Amino acid sequence: MDITSYLNSLEDCREALIHFRRDLHRHPEPGWKEFYTTARLIAALKDHGIPVKYGKEILHRDYLWGYPPQKELDVCMERAVSQGADAGIIKEMDGFTGAMAVIETGNPGPVTALRFDIDCNDVGEDMEPCRLPVKNGFSSENCGCMHACGHDGHASLGLFVCLALNAIRKDLSGVIKIIFQPAEEGVRGAQSIAESGVLDDVDWFLSGHLGMGWKTGELLALTNGFLSTTKIDAVITGLSSHAGASPQDGHNAILAACSATLAMHTACQDSRGAARLNVGTISGGTGRNVVADRAVLQLETRGETTEIERTVFDRAMSSLKGAAEMFGCTVDTKIMGSASGADSDDALEPFIKAGASRIPEITRYVPSGGFTGSEDAAYLMSRVQAHGGKAAYMCIGCDIAAPHHNARFDIDENALMTGLKLYISVLWELLGQKQ
Amino acid sequence: MDITSYLNSLEDCREALIHFRRDLHRHPEPGWKEFYTTARLIAALKDHGIPVKYGKEILHRDYLWGYPPQKELDVCMERAVSQGADAGIIKEMDGFTGAMAVIETGNPGPVTALRFDIDCNDVGEDMEPCRLPVKNGFSSENCGCMHACGHDGHASLGLFVCLALNAIRKDLSGVIKIIFQPAEEGVRGAQSIAESGVLDDVDWFLSGHLGMGWKTGELLALTNGFLSTTKIDAVITGLSSHAGASPQDGHNAILAACSATLAMHTACQDSRGAARLNVGTISGGTGRNVVADRAVLQLETRGETTEIERTVFDRAMSSLKGAAEMFGCTVDTKIMGSASGADSDDALEPFIKAGASRIPEITRYVPSGGFTGSEDAAYLMSRVQAHGGKAAYMCIGCDIAAPHHNARFDIDENALMTGLKLYISVLWELLGQKQ
Amino acid sequence: MDITSYLNSLEDCREALIHFRRDLHRHPEPGWKEFYTTARLIAALKDHGIPVKYGKEILHRDYLWGYPPQKELDVCMERAVSQGADAGIIKEMDGFTGAMAVIETGNPGPVTALRFDIDCNDVGEDMEPCRLPVKNGFSSENCGCMHACGHDGHASLGLFVCLALNAIRKDLSGVIKIIFQPAEEGVRGAQSIAESGVLDDVDWFLSGHLGMGWKTGELLALTNGFLSTTKIDAVITGLSSHAGASPQDGHNAILAACSATLAMHTACQDSRGAARLNVGTISGGTGRNVVADRAVLQLETRGETTEIERTVFDRAMSSLKGAAEMFGCTVDTKIMGSASGADSDDALEPFIKAGASRIPEITRYVPSGGFTGSEDAAYLMSRVQAHGGKAAYMCIGCDIAAPHHNARFDIDENALMTGLKLYISVLWELLGQKQ
Amino acid sequence: MDITSYLNSLEDCREALIHFRRDLHRHPEPGWKEFYTTARLIAALKDHGIPVKYGKEILHRDYLWGYPPQKELDVCMERAVSQGADAGIIKEMDGFTGAMAVIETGNPGPVTALRFDIDCNDVGEDMEPCRLPVKNGFSSENCGCMHACGHDGHASLGLFVCLALNAIRKDLSGVIKIIFQPAEEGVRGAQSIAESGVLDDVDWFLSGHLGMGWKTGELLALTNGFLSTTKIDAVITGLSSHAGASPQDGHNAILAACSATLAMHTACQDSRGAARLNVGTISGGTGRNVVADRAVLQLETRGETTEIERTVFDRAMSSLKGAAEMFGCTVDTKIMGSASGADSDDALEPFIKAGASRIPEITRYVPSGGFTGSEDAAYLMSRVQAHGGKAAYMCIGCDIAAPHHNARFDIDENALMTGLKLYISVLWELLGQKQ
Repeated sequence: MDITSYLNSLEDCREALIHFRRDLHRHPEPGWKEFYTTARLIAALKDHGIPVKYGKEILHRDYLWGYPPQKELDVCMERAVSQGADAGIIKEMDGFTGAMAVIETGNPGPVTALRFDIDCNDVGEDMEPCRLPVKNGFSSENCGCMHACGHDGHASLGLFVCLALNAIRKDLSGVIKIIFQPAEEGVRGAQSIAESGVLDDVDWFLSGHLGMGWKTGELLALTNGFLSTTKIDAVITGLSSHAGASPQDGHNAILAACSATLAMHTACQDSRGAARLNVGTISGGTGRNVVADRAVLQLETRGETTEIERTVFDRAMSSLKGAAEMFGCTVDTKIMGSASGADSDDALEPFIKAGASRIPEITRYVPSGGFTGSEDAAYLMSRVQAHGGKAAYMCIGCDIAAPHHNARFDIDENALMTGLKLYISVLWELLGQKQ
Repeated sequence: MDITSYLNSLEDCREALIHFRRDLHRHPEPGWKEFYTTARLIAALKDHGIPVKYGKEILHRDYLWGYPPQKELDVCMERAVSQGADAGIIKEMDGFTGAMAVIETGNPGPVTALRFDIDCNDVGEDMEPCRLPVKNGFSSENCGCMHACGHDGHASLGLFVCLALNAIRKDLSGVIKIIFQPAEEGVRGAQSIAESGVLDDVDWFLSGHLGMGWKTGELLALTNGFLSTTKIDAVITGLSSHAGASPQDGHNAILAACSATLAMHTACQDSRGAARLNVGTISGGTGRNVVADRAVLQLETRGETTEIERTVFDRAMSSLKGAAEMFGCTVDTKIMGSASGADSDDALEPFIKAGASRIPEITRYVPSGGFTGSEDAAYLMSRVQAHGGKAAYMCIGCDIAAPHHNARFDIDENALMTGLKLYISVLWELLGQKQ
Repeated sequence: MDITSYLNSLEDCREALIHFRRDLHRHPEPGWKEFYTTARLIAALKDHGIPVKYGKEILHRDYLWGYPPQKELDVCMERAVSQGADAGIIKEMDGFTGAMAVIETGNPGPVTALRFDIDCNDVGEDMEPCRLPVKNGFSSENCGCMHACGHDGHASLGLFVCLALNAIRKDLSGVIKIIFQPAEEGVRGAQSIAESGVLDDVDWFLSGHLGMGWKTGELLALTNGFLSTTKIDAVITGLSSHAGASPQDGHNAILAACSATLAMHTACQDSRGAARLNVGTISGGTGRNVVADRAVLQLETRGETTEIERTVFDRAMSSLKGAAEMFGCTVDTKIMGSASGADSDDALEPFIKAGASRIPEITRYVPSGGFTGSEDAAYLMSRVQAHGGKAAYMCIGCDIAAPHHNARFDIDENALMTGLKLYISVLWELLGQKQ
Repeated sequence: MDITSYLNSLEDCREALIHFRRDLHRHPEPGWKEFYTTARLIAALKDHGIPVKYGKEILHRDYLWGYPPQKELDVCMERAVSQGADAGIIKEMDGFTGAMAVIETGNPGPVTALRFDIDCNDVGEDMEPCRLPVKNGFSSENCGCMHACGHDGHASLGLFVCLALNAIRKDLSGVIKIIFQPAEEGVRGAQSIAESGVLDDVDWFLSGHLGMGWKTGELLALTNGFLSTTKIDAVITGLSSHAGASPQDGHNAILAACSATLAMHTACQDSRGAARLNVGTISGGTGRNVVADRAVLQLETRGETTEIERTVFDRAMSSLKGAAEMFGCTVDTKIMGSASGADSDDALEPFIKAGASRIPEITRYVPSGGFTGSEDAAYLMSRVQAHGGKAAYMCIGCDIAAPHHNARFDIDENALMTGLKLYISVLWELLGQKQ
């Protein structure tokens, strides 16, 4: 097979790829609620005869961080159907989003996994007429929801990578698993997939992100330095009383929350590397003249290594427990998300380099570089690496109209085609039957 | 005039009084938004030819604590009209609620003022079918609003006291001003009335409350020990930044709010008497992974005397300013309400006692007692006392179905008739032309 | 017996009384170390054949708050002997100070107890030549110790009251116990005496203080409103580490102490009455560049009633425990002193009034009044009142040269004679065999 | 000149070097008080005809961080003389310690500077008989002072380096300045020397430390990563009042100190690199029952770069000011020491490597490595680097008996000879006239 001609031939997909991406952009769905998105992906895979697993087959139910209440899921499923999703597929999904296509090449060889995330952000899209999504009629139809981090592009890319790999599967080796992961925002979805075991036979793992500071034409091959992180909700419960008439009868949850917040924020000095803690939101109390019986903190801990993050996390827990005790309150904490730290494996860099060299759209190649945040792909990478597999995370350059998570965010759709060719070309390096 | 027969004849009003009260209960309106309520009162007064002032005539515009934005007022005015209020009167009110009837007896004598508060609470009424207001079809029609402190009773009582006094005005002396005060909840409305000057010629001032721990048949003649109080909203503004990628660029408004809250709550040790401070609500931050750039505190200070309250207030202000400075933030504070401390005058007790002795429904008379909270009637009392007038605040016993401000609160309507007779009987003691 | 002549005859003691007081002033001894003072008292009592109990007979060993280490006691015992105390008596005291004279009248009657405190303050006396104690050569010879609260006067007064009562015991009734209490400062000594049981048969209890805001010639008969109080030392233990090289290995005791201190100071809002908490001293850490492994707080809680004080105390304990937990530290707390709240009994006022009326030096008589602080006599009063006895605490007016506890404090010695006559005259009212 | 033979001949100094070091060990002097030490050095230099500058010639008076009061200096000067220092030299020093020898080679060439620190620690030496300094009679004679960081070795090494360079100066080029720096502990002395300008013509700068985790025989050529640091004392002044009787009159300095301490410790999250803050000691208050009017904090800030340290420092200052304002207090801060961050220059490594290769005692050579703390040599390095000079800081391996700053610390004196040969050999590489 002539890989170069095949890559050129992929240009025929350009219109369909962009069309699919715009459809997802119009129907953004937040984590664990990607019913329309998942149903569309499954339908397209099935149309092409590609086997696909979903729901409980690829998720471990003990790790569904931040999973919404059934009532909210019901609303989203109904909306998905009303927007055109296949009602039968949604029924089969049984309340769980995400999917995994499995391409059996029929040739002996390694197990390779790709991962694409599919959820949107809790951001209301800016509807200014001159913005491209508005002008071209594909801006969000779901109030308060928006693809402001490019996962519409990731999901579309993943689908077309699947289709392209399927077309040439006879020329590849081993088995390829393409994962469509729910709930990346808030780093909630990956651990559940990792714990399900579907990655435990994987030799090669590849994932990536559009943009992230890299412009169209640039490629960062190996991304390193993901911060380990945990997302925590803490609910402090005290006892209310009238602030004027019987202040002594109350147990003040706001005071406990304030003490905990201050104490926790002192926990980030660590000579082993970067440590972070942020109480990002606080809310408490019911009225000015009532001793507050409830306060809620949304916080996150991060660390350059899992050990550092663990130290910060433990101190956050102690701070919360101690602060509650100080004021006669109790505290419940709930893990809302979690990502490990991870680095890409050098072993994959030559394959990416060779793959990229075939794509003229890639004009600047950077072998490795850092990441200023957390990504729950790191969980999947760690899981693969734990049994000896190799993993890499690429940043695929993409001009953006506004910063990630901003209401005016938009991607350069040209980067989608570049990404599609890149994945196919790199996988050819890894798995191509080159005679 | 035979006062005893007249008091007996008031029984004829029982049905109308209860009917009026139930109508107000169905249409509860929070502070500064009592358009339906005020319009109904004005219409009734005008129907009986009683002169009435309202709007800017009785309010000083510099002291409209917690006055809502025009947009909210517009919505409430529209609702009032749609619920049956006189559109013409509402137009004349020009956005201001509250009213003052003025009864000129034509006889020489003192100026006497009565005060009734008319606003509801921000509480959604419990709609359980067995509750009396639900069963009898007069539960709240305004979502999230409820007369849960009996001001529907106060307003109705005030109206019928007016009518009854008007009927016998020839047998009384001096001038009687009956004030229907908006926005007592949050102690917002009284100071504006006090500063308008309408009380500055008042010799006798009388107000009161249904319930407050006293059962139907009981009367506390002189209520003492109102706590001076100020209600404050504080907005702390910092600078947001990404909590993982550039924490050092943020100025954390949540940390400032927490430090201020802890510091303020240490300010209540005072050997001169009771001092109180409560940060009743806190809210801040926009997302878990963002250094918060904004936090809002709703707090109140109280003191057994104005001096004590001032000390606590000053310390709260210092705490807020200092805490903002600690974290490179700024703070804006806004006074949302305010009440002075006050005590009733002993000089009025003999009149109340004599008046009460004529009412067989009053089975237990208590000359004086304390109050565990704040009431902005205290501002009016202080204003009257400042120029040598005498003031008293009565607690008129009334069985209640649930605590004040509770969603299941309801009054014993029998207490309304007792209250009506009490006011007329006491005023007869004060002003009756007894030959 | 003619009480008036007897009171007049007491003038013969004036010189001896002043002489004895000045000797005590020269040899001030802090709480639990009053060896010289106690030995002098015991010797004088024995010289007059008055039975006296001391040491373990009148102290319960479980309640020796703030009892010093043996080494310090040894030094004080040696000093006492070197200053002229009877070595034999000191040996018998076996390390415990304080004494109780017991006068048996031989006549049937009630048991009466008087209480005089005997310890000095940890204050270095001002040695300016013009001060009376310096000019007259009776200033403190014990470095850092000074009678700056008049307990030298109390002890002397107690001795001469004993001698005077003993002289007329045949004309009195019942049994009289005169207690010389150690360690009033820091409210440490009284509970140990109360728990020993020596007061459990007492019908009448009388104590008092010189000065306290009352001038020579004034008498406050019934002192009320002693604040209940507990004195606590808290030691927080963490783990040190190098602040630059391994901050994450430390458990910061200073941060725990700071959190606890702030939290505790929020605990004083109580609608039942005055509540107080003060962290009076804080110290922690060993060096600027070391994470502190130890911090010590000296604090006190107070309340208008024992219940209020208990609430504040419990919150202080919770705050300390919770704060330690927040930072991975532990905390040890130790009770260093304690006094209950108490009020004087009205039943004693007529006797005091009648007694006082016989003393021309008393020119202003005040039946009852408040106290702005704590006194451990309150423990003794409560103990007596608990089994139905009656107790009173008088403030005996006395001009003072500087505030209590000040290095320039001094009493007007004329008040000593007034006090002596007052006690005898009041006891005559209570116990005199008036035929 | 045959450098190898010359290095061998230095063995003749061994006994004298050790003897001099032991004499300094017996007479340890803390920062700014090194009168005996400086006088001994000056005397020895003068004996060998080496020009030496000292006192105000090499110190800028505006940067004497933590300079002691005159009274303390007087005591130390007297002690120095009594211990055998030259009274004339001490007089000439005029209260300032430290010195700089200047060796003019007479040949053209660069200006080279060496720096040795000379002060001791505030540690009482462990006097256990089996410790070498005790057994050999050279343990500290100055109570509470001890050379527990090896600066006695540094100073001795510096002196003998001087003598050895002076002996071969004709074979070297340029000018060599050998600085004996006072007050390294607490990073107080270097900035004053830097600001005096004596380094402003320096091309090569070399300094180092014995031990620091490296064993006898090891050499770390280029030390990197000194943390920038500032040492600060903060005094918070409030207003005292009686905690029971008038708590509202106080302004609580302890509460301000606690708030500031918590707030400051939240300031160490920085994505640019390591940031540190430590409140190492806290003390406040005068008595349990008094609202504290004073609290003192000893703290330090550190940063991987000067910019980071500045951010932390600014936040510490804001926290202190804001906390004082919160409680109506004021705060005074005083800089007690300061060091910049610095890295060694690679340009010097080849010279050090070549120089070290000639010393058989050096058995392990490490080109570069990190440092876990702060050193005020960094100020001198930065000053030299600022005008284009090159600087390096070596860690000269040395077995130690206990950790640095421990009361049982002692150096392996063999390392002194290794160090002497190393300096001479490296300088020969830099400055040797090799024909």
